[in-house]
Amino acid sequence: MGNADYSYPDNFNSATNHHHVAVPPPQPFVKSLKNTLKETFFPDDPLRQFKNQPPRKKFILGLQYIFPILEWGPRYSLQFFRADLIAGITIASLAIPQGISYAKLANLPPILGLYSSFVPPLVYAVMGSSRDLAVGTVAVGSLLTGSMLSDVVNHNDDPKLYLHLAFTATFFAGLFQAGLGIFRLGFIVDFLSHATIVGFMGGAATVVCLQQLKGILGLDRFTHETDLISVMRSVFTQIHMWRWESAVLGCVFLFYLLISRYFSKKKPKLFWISAMAPLISVILGSLLVYLTHAEKHGVEVIGQLKKGINPASITDLNFDSNYLSAAIKTGIVTGIIALAEGIAVGRSFAMFKNYHIDGNKEMIAFGMMNIAGSCTSCYLTAGPFSRSAVNFNAGCKTAVSNIVMALAVMITFLFLTPLFHYTPLVVLSSIIVAAMLGLIDYETAIHLWHVDKFDFVVCMSAYIGVVFANIEVGLVLAIGLSILRVLLFVARPKTLILGNIPDSVVYRSVDQYKNTNNVPGVLILEIDAPIYFANSNYLRERISRWIDDEEDKIKSSGEIGLQYVILDMSAVGNIDTSGISMLEEVMKIIERRGLKLALANPGAEVMKKLNKSKFLEKIGQEWIFLTVADAVGACSYMLHTCKPKMTSEEYGSNV
Amino acid sequence: MGNADYSYPDNFNSATNHHHVAVPPPQPFVKSLKNTLKETFFPDDPLRQFKNQPPRKKFILGLQYIFPILEWGPRYSLQFFRADLIAGITIASLAIPQGISYAKLANLPPILGLYSSFVPPLVYAVMGSSRDLAVGTVAVGSLLTGSMLSDVVNHNDDPKLYLHLAFTATFFAGLFQAGLGIFRLGFIVDFLSHATIVGFMGGAATVVCLQQLKGILGLDRFTHETDLISVMRSVFTQIHMWRWESAVLGCVFLFYLLISRYFSKKKPKLFWISAMAPLISVILGSLLVYLTHAEKHGVEVIGQLKKGINPASITDLNFDSNYLSAAIKTGIVTGIIALAEGIAVGRSFAMFKNYHIDGNKEMIAFGMMNIAGSCTSCYLTAGPFSRSAVNFNAGCKTAVSNIVMALAVMITFLFLTPLFHYTPLVVLSSIIVAAMLGLIDYETAIHLWHVDKFDFVVCMSAYIGVVFANIEVGLVLAIGLSILRVLLFVARPKTLILGNIPDSVVYRSVDQYKNTNNVPGVLILEIDAPIYFANSNYLRERISRWIDDEEDKIKSSGEIGLQYVILDMSAVGNIDTSGISMLEEVMKIIERRGLKLALANPGAEVMKKLNKSKFLEKIGQEWIFLTVADAVGACSYMLHTCKPKMTSEEYGSNV
Repeated sequence: MGNADYSYPDNFNSATNHHHVAVPPPQPFVKSLKNTLKETFFPDDPLRQFKNQPPRKKFILGLQYIFPILEWGPRYSLQFFRADLIAGITIASLAIPQGISYAKLANLPPILGLYSSFVPPLVYAVMGSSRDLAVGTVAVGSLLTGSMLSDVVNHNDDPKLYLHLAFTATFFAGLFQAGLGIFRLGFIVDFLSHATIVGFMGGAATVVCLQQLKGILGLDRFTHETDLISVMRSVFTQIHMWRWESAVLGCVFLFYLLISRYFSKKKPKLFWISAMAPLISVILGSLLVYLTHAEKHGVEVIGQLKKGINPASITDLNFDSNYLSAAIKTGIVTGIIALAEGIAVGRSFAMFKNYHIDGNKEMIAFGMMNIAGSCTSCYLTAGPFSRSAVNFNAGCKTAVSNIVMALAVMITFLFLTPLFHYTPLVVLSSIIVAAMLGLIDYETAIHLWHVDKFDFVVCMSAYIGVVFANIEVGLVLAIGLSILRVLLFVARPKTLILGNIPDSVVYRSVDQYKNTNNVPGVLILEIDAPIYFANSNYLRERISRWIDDEEDKIKSSGEIGLQYVILDMSAVGNIDTSGISMLEEVMKIIERRGLKLALANPGAEVMKKLNKSKFLEKIGQEWIFLTVADAVGACSYMLHTCKPKMTSEEYGSNV
Repeated sequence: MGNADYSYPDNFNSATNHHHVAVPPPQPFVKSLKNTLKETFFPDDPLRQFKNQPPRKKFILGLQYIFPILEWGPRYSLQFFRADLIAGITIASLAIPQGISYAKLANLPPILGLYSSFVPPLVYAVMGSSRDLAVGTVAVGSLLTGSMLSDVVNHNDDPKLYLHLAFTATFFAGLFQAGLGIFRLGFIVDFLSHATIVGFMGGAATVVCLQQLKGILGLDRFTHETDLISVMRSVFTQIHMWRWESAVLGCVFLFYLLISRYFSKKKPKLFWISAMAPLISVILGSLLVYLTHAEKHGVEVIGQLKKGINPASITDLNFDSNYLSAAIKTGIVTGIIALAEGIAVGRSFAMFKNYHIDGNKEMIAFGMMNIAGSCTSCYLTAGPFSRSAVNFNAGCKTAVSNIVMALAVMITFLFLTPLFHYTPLVVLSSIIVAAMLGLIDYETAIHLWHVDKFDFVVCMSAYIGVVFANIEVGLVLAIGLSILRVLLFVARPKTLILGNIPDSVVYRSVDQYKNTNNVPGVLILEIDAPIYFANSNYLRERISRWIDDEEDKIKSSGEIGLQYVILDMSAVGNIDTSGISMLEEVMKIIERRGLKLALANPGAEVMKKLNKSKFLEKIGQEWIFLTVADAVGACSYMLHTCKPKMTSEEYGSNV
């Protein structure tokens, strides 16, 4: 094996002006573990305000932390209340028809939709930190509950068991949500990327619309599957069963709802036109049926609704081992979807009004509201975007608008349920379709295509998975692809050749900056990711290939032979033991070729590990430089003063 | 909302010397996709040597690529053959007793161990590219095959079905291995990190040793579980059944094997002492039993072994749907474990001798050898470390040593099988235990603890999972933790405050370099990971917190107020649409506080996306700098010439 003489001249440090790379002082293991855990689980430092406070103050702050109402309540004013009253009544007028419709989507009795707009908003008003979120049942959550529970129990065969399982699933959803918040695992929700949510919501909305064909066409029998192909087959094999009365009514109301939304979108001041439209549709539809007795001509109606306040359902929770796993699974899936939507909605309004939402705290609030809901005949609730947007546009100031809404809904189910007797189901279907069409966000999908192709693929795979297979497939596909992207980023990191930017000591990628100059005899490579087990084999191959390429280029151009390889470690955030072995191997490969390896700007974490693994001793601390410019300076100095004894031509003889 | 006047002075660019950050020219989508796919699947550019060659030469190169023997065969010399002959006979002497022992471990007839050392080595000699790998059955693969197939079929109840399933699993293992290689998915194996493999191998070795207690103690009944607790219970509830004859014999041979290994380790020249020891043990043990008739005193022997060459087994492959999923699962798990070990062993010897191993090509060779094996009565084979190390120490030159071994084994099962009739099982157990003890690499585990705590945790979780639960649990646990680490790196990226290194234009982490100086009025933050959906919420919170901290510090020290936040993007390898939204939000947050955001050194990929998403227009191209020093220069210039109208004190009024 050739032994090139690369001994470092003693006078070098004084000859060039070069700084040493610091090895961070050793930290006790417990302390560094504590720091890591803190950054992982408490990145927002929620205990910050508790520091240096007397115990009494700490107790009050603690209470205010758990119940934000104690913080803003004392400052509440009559002016605020006027705004919240208007907003609350507006969202109630939306909540009542939507609640009834979404309950049908979950195959649950319609009255549950009203119950669910009573208790959970009250809990949220006390514990939630968003001022704009309007609480209630959500279409996608309802659909998911319906489709997942129908896999184990048929809601027609055993409606009681089905109902109890819905409560149990809601209980587990709440438990899971609160658990995520309490154990500060909120970042799990971050793995549902924006692209995933857009695709998933669009797909779910499409599926929900397809399901409404049953109501709009007035069909009796319908498939239990949710995918496009099954639904289309079900619809078109029953053409002779289509009821034109129902279809006409549905299309008219749908047209009215869409037109009113179009106007509200054009002039945000007219938000109430679109907010009131569902209630007006229900009233008009009910009147029409009542007057024409259309219920006897193929237009189905809601029928009898039970009067009275939410009955307790804590004894209905069903922990029977036969159904437990289904209930837990439904709870976790619906719970996480509800969180992802709810927190994103809360955050975007908070960003508008410039206040701060603590994700983990919100999760606890969502969880408590669902646990309380499951004990009082409510099913899964969250913060639907449509209702929250109406709340925001109606000028709500605090969560009091939720309280107002809850009271308005209470009055409805205490006294007004008979009014819904003649409400045609087809109107509910129109309301759902109109709401769902707003969730299909094709503009964002186009934006994703322009900006980031991979995000677009993630979005479309969620959409296609949901529409053509089922909701779980779409979700798993999209999350899997998102995670694959992160893994691929690490598994296949970019390696870039750097060159000198003229008239500077700056070295940048030759691909990005076209005017860079090569440094003769020196190859400078930047590695753009942490060096981990997942990429160490790749990086070894890739670095060898860069050296091959460079030597080929030099051979054909007849320039000065390659003598030094500099790895710019600025972007290497961390390294593991596989990565260190890789560096050792690369050093061996490079030395066998008669070249010399230098590192530029390794970070604290990397230096610590290189030091502990004795790599620093092997490469020599003097071959580690603060900047690429220092490294190039040292290499150029050596190139011109002390020639190595072995040239790269001798390399072949070692094989 | 405060509107600070941050308009950029027109004369600024001429007043300071600052370079622009280039937006890379738009690339056609198809071209960039092609580049990405090439880097992902062909990082080693295997078609490089085919470039600019005449078709005839291309064909020859192609054949040589698939069958490396065509490349080195013509240069083969007598001198090489002498070396390979010695090495081949040495590894045959190890292969025969090991083959019989490992087949027992897989609950398969002992003769299969010999068959498996005949066909696969011949295939590998033709297709493999390692010169040092000795092919044969492996302990961990045998154990895995045994434990996974025993879950579906009891080998005592239906030995024929069990045997056929073993062939089928081997077939699928080969198919999977070859598929990985052909579709260039070899990097999947990289996700088994070195730490995982060390822990997993150690755990599997422990489990195998525990299973040998049955043979050594001469027990008839034994648990089918592999975990420590079940085995200990099984051993200690049958104390009265222990056979001292068997135990004494086992301990004596184990002692002899360990002593011989100890000597060989001390003096590598004496490698043959340890290589021959298993065969000598078998011969001595058989003689002893033959002479003392110990088989009638509680020492079990192998008994009759069938004479003759491998029978064809292609018609025995069982694709019955009842067992298909078990066979496929066993095939995939054993296949990937065999690959991980085999390729790591091949690579480490290649590194010693300075030649190159192509991972994907090796996978095809392993796959073909197992497919061929499954049709000729062989079960799973790979490149065991122990045998390859003996091969290497014995001075092998090429894969011809595998051919020699195969022929020696063939002679054995053609003519010498009656000699194994009296071989006591306890000797085989001792051979297995001795081999397994060498796999428990506690020194590496200690090294991992010193260098990288997380790698140590991964290693120990694999070990503990395998020993206390089962092999699959250990494997899933370790891979899951390894992937979690990658995800956590991205989900919780480091953000570092930078300061100026005295007498330079270099900015580095103030934690790593203690002598850095703050720049008054400017906060410089480095982000150490790609900005993806998984960390965009975290980064927004963390950046806000850094600004809070900085303002608190400034308030207490009475320095010049914070005016600029510079994000150093050097280490941000990529950004997705969630990340871009985060940057927009951060810009808003910063501007609401009356501060100004600047970016330093975004890479090509990041600039491309910032441009496409119009973020560049929003922030202003002039607020993007080539280096941190440029950004600081511009900020300092602005601080001293044009004061912004709004100070950070006004911030509170916006809430």
